[in-house]
Amino acid sequence: MIQITLIQIDNYGPWTVTPGPRAEPDLQTLQSRLYGDLEREFGAHGGIVFFNRFDNLIAISNGMDYDDHKLIQDSIRNRYPITISMGVGSADTAYEAQKIATEMIQKGGGAQSASRCEVLNIDSLVDDDDSYVQIAHIDIDDVTGLLTDVETAFDTSIKVYEVLNALMVELSQIGGLCFFIGGDNYMAPSNNISDDILRDALERVDTKTGVRLKAGIGRSKTPAKAADMADIGLEDIRAGKVDDTVIIYDDRK
Amino acid sequence: MIQITLIQIDNYGPWTVTPGPRAEPDLQTLQSRLYGDLEREFGAHGGIVFFNRFDNLIAISNGMDYDDHKLIQDSIRNRYPITISMGVGSADTAYEAQKIATEMIQKGGGAQSASRCEVLNIDSLVDDDDSYVQIAHIDIDDVTGLLTDVETAFDTSIKVYEVLNALMVELSQIGGLCFFIGGDNYMAPSNNISDDILRDALERVDTKTGVRLKAGIGRSKTPAKAADMADIGLEDIRAGKVDDTVIIYDDRK
Amino acid sequence: MIQITLIQIDNYGPWTVTPGPRAEPDLQTLQSRLYGDLEREFGAHGGIVFFNRFDNLIAISNGMDYDDHKLIQDSIRNRYPITISMGVGSADTAYEAQKIATEMIQKGGGAQSASRCEVLNIDSLVDDDDSYVQIAHIDIDDVTGLLTDVETAFDTSIKVYEVLNALMVELSQIGGLCFFIGGDNYMAPSNNISDDILRDALERVDTKTGVRLKAGIGRSKTPAKAADMADIGLEDIRAGKVDDTVIIYDDRK
Amino acid sequence: MIQITLIQIDNYGPWTVTPGPRAEPDLQTLQSRLYGDLEREFGAHGGIVFFNRFDNLIAISNGMDYDDHKLIQDSIRNRYPITISMGVGSADTAYEAQKIATEMIQKGGGAQSASRCEVLNIDSLVDDDDSYVQIAHIDIDDVTGLLTDVETAFDTSIKVYEVLNALMVELSQIGGLCFFIGGDNYMAPSNNISDDILRDALERVDTKTGVRLKAGIGRSKTPAKAADMADIGLEDIRAGKVDDTVIIYDDRK
Repeated sequence: MIQITLIQIDNYGPWTVTPGPRAEPDLQTLQSRLYGDLEREFGAHGGIVFFNRFDNLIAISNGMDYDDHKLIQDSIRNRYPITISMGVGSADTAYEAQKIATEMIQKGGGAQSASRCEVLNIDSLVDDDDSYVQIAHIDIDDVTGLLTDVETAFDTSIKVYEVLNALMVELSQIGGLCFFIGGDNYMAPSNNISDDILRDALERVDTKTGVRLKAGIGRSKTPAKAADMADIGLEDIRAGKVDDTVIIYDDRK
Repeated sequence: MIQITLIQIDNYGPWTVTPGPRAEPDLQTLQSRLYGDLEREFGAHGGIVFFNRFDNLIAISNGMDYDDHKLIQDSIRNRYPITISMGVGSADTAYEAQKIATEMIQKGGGAQSASRCEVLNIDSLVDDDDSYVQIAHIDIDDVTGLLTDVETAFDTSIKVYEVLNALMVELSQIGGLCFFIGGDNYMAPSNNISDDILRDALERVDTKTGVRLKAGIGRSKTPAKAADMADIGLEDIRAGKVDDTVIIYDDRK
Repeated sequence: MIQITLIQIDNYGPWTVTPGPRAEPDLQTLQSRLYGDLEREFGAHGGIVFFNRFDNLIAISNGMDYDDHKLIQDSIRNRYPITISMGVGSADTAYEAQKIATEMIQKGGGAQSASRCEVLNIDSLVDDDDSYVQIAHIDIDDVTGLLTDVETAFDTSIKVYEVLNALMVELSQIGGLCFFIGGDNYMAPSNNISDDILRDALERVDTKTGVRLKAGIGRSKTPAKAADMADIGLEDIRAGKVDDTVIIYDDRK
Repeated sequence: MIQITLIQIDNYGPWTVTPGPRAEPDLQTLQSRLYGDLEREFGAHGGIVFFNRFDNLIAISNGMDYDDHKLIQDSIRNRYPITISMGVGSADTAYEAQKIATEMIQKGGGAQSASRCEVLNIDSLVDDDDSYVQIAHIDIDDVTGLLTDVETAFDTSIKVYEVLNALMVELSQIGGLCFFIGGDNYMAPSNNISDDILRDALERVDTKTGVRLKAGIGRSKTPAKAADMADIGLEDIRAGKVDDTVIIYDDRK
């Protein structure tokens, strides 16, 4: 089972324009620093965070309990002008787990409610025996040769984000999630999606967008190790060690 | 005229997998910190940076010269395990300026060339008299009520990124750019795009995606001030002070 | 027993002047960021780090094992232009533990040896049953009224650093350590130093420097909790709840 | 003339213990990040910041005006849970300038006054023609061979801080300031102190502490360039290019 934490800045929209609109470079710095810090805090426990929409971040948090989350929540309050709420859910698929995590936050109050502050609602935690995370690391074949070094920077970005949007739609329909992680790289929490089903999904995106995708799929007990396995898989495809567009590496016995 | 700086991490792809793949939480932290730092460095001079693809960042840099860029480039080398190259271009539209900036980098060498390091190629700088920046701050009407507080976190994200992709396509066709800045917010460097043309573009995106967009358009001599004007415009629409989906504020006489 | 980790930047002196001297604001930023990051990484496991000399940082690391240290060491390599070595020692007193930690690093090679890189030498780890940390949080009585609001900023600093130096000398002679933590605050890892012996040491510093010191002493299984206990103690003295210059709070049964 | 900015966190002491004492690792992270950020903000304008006591930081700010300071003050408020006040003074010596800067803050209210918030009081700014900064970069001869590689980490620190305290006292008496910048390095803003007078001061510290100090003295129009000149001077002494314990480099005609 995969455990997902949804992290939401409390009442952020109203704060950004009180008393007047705050300078955009300051808000961008705040958001990027918050993301970087949360990445470290979850990373210290083997978790991984995706920036998602910056005011709503999504983490895979297998192995982390209430106290681990509480320490993070308190630390943000002590170092930022904003506070965060968190909802935690566990399920067989990443999509289902984030759905539960969302409900856990929503039942604490609205995202722009001035009265909601530092909710920490946990529906269920994955115990050690059931802990299992699958992550696919997906990239675009030869993006440097086909796009970065020949197209304008923004035209490359349009293609990268078109592919992202297509991946988000396709993966959500088979129980997965997908996040942009920079460059031409995407990470898809994808418990219970087989290599065949993922290959089909990637091919549908290939057809729709005109690129060629490939993916290393990692499976492990913890998010960080699953990501490591996925990275190694993708690297082996890049190096031509594997003659397929997807490969699975699993570090569990 | 608008001045655009394209910032590209040198040989980043190969570095991330040498000697083996580096831990993804570390890379995500590195990228978010680099973005936050560049935002401060450009922000200190009235500029603004968009994370774009994290390994290729796009800044509006009116008012900044060679020495300002060089100080930033040196500082990154002194504090990060990677180096950056920069290309600078100026033009009547943001799209054209980024095209020139891209060419300035590309003529310095490929993004994955081990021999390219710390290129700083400037095609032209906007002088003070010609300096003029237009930025539109766009958001989705009532995203909290329609999406965040009722849909799952990921379904909200799918919609937000679908809108982003549609905006990128529409705006690039009329000489603009568009970047996601978190939440349900987008910023569009958009010199020489009138309010009528922007309103039409937003309506095409509304039709395509099923949301309702609105935009404050700011015009000023410097990027930061143009963004401030845009923020105030969007806030006035939100507050119902304006009965339109777009409004222009200009702080120049 | 207390467990101390000494963290040393590898070959830092030579790096700061290669190829020529690097800009001092960049080095100061690098050092402060490294300190902040290490504070988060150790803090995520209940540890605490003192900046000490910035290129040689000292952490109390009870509860952290080889893998925890290795993850931190790898993460720094992936995000900074420098690497770190670490030595770990455990003992009945903080002074003795840092002595062992120092030897663990020194046997890995010199601080300015180009060949030493990412040493991680552990002499011994404190197991859970023996884990016990004592920290004293010391401050100067009414520093705001007597110094900050009436003297020049630098004259206040001279006094604060004079007190620091006196505390370092006194505490090292009774098996303790002492670090400046900002303002007029000092933290002293001080296992096996009784309240009477600490009170005497503070009085010797009072006499030598002309200020009046007070201290909350915290005892707990982990460094962070010991620091919390010390903070509460100091706060109770400040609030007049205690009629003494030192007080001990212990959260263990 | 040298221009000094004193930066003071507003009402920081009370904030750190409200509602109860905040976790020390969080406060240490907050302080180190604030220092790093201020270093970038001032550094972007050729200035340099010393951490001093972390809640009271001292910057050399020649070339920076009211708007530059205001932008920094606003940015901190937008990204931190605390705010800062600033006082600015100019004089022929660094000591005198910080004295004026202190008075500028003090007349805005006390450091622990709940009503004082974001004071920005400027006594005078140095104009371009009069701008002149002298900085000495001082270090301990062979600290690695004599201390770091042979003594315990803490005993080395005791010596380094003993030297710091002695330097602070000696330099303040001849119109200078002195700050610890990590390792065995100190920086002394020292306008109007000749090489002979500085050499004498260092020798008095040598006698008192038993080490051997040397110093590169840099003179320039801006703080950052003066620091660069000082670094080169110290490096030339280290390399044996100069047969003296002090040397002056001046990049002005």
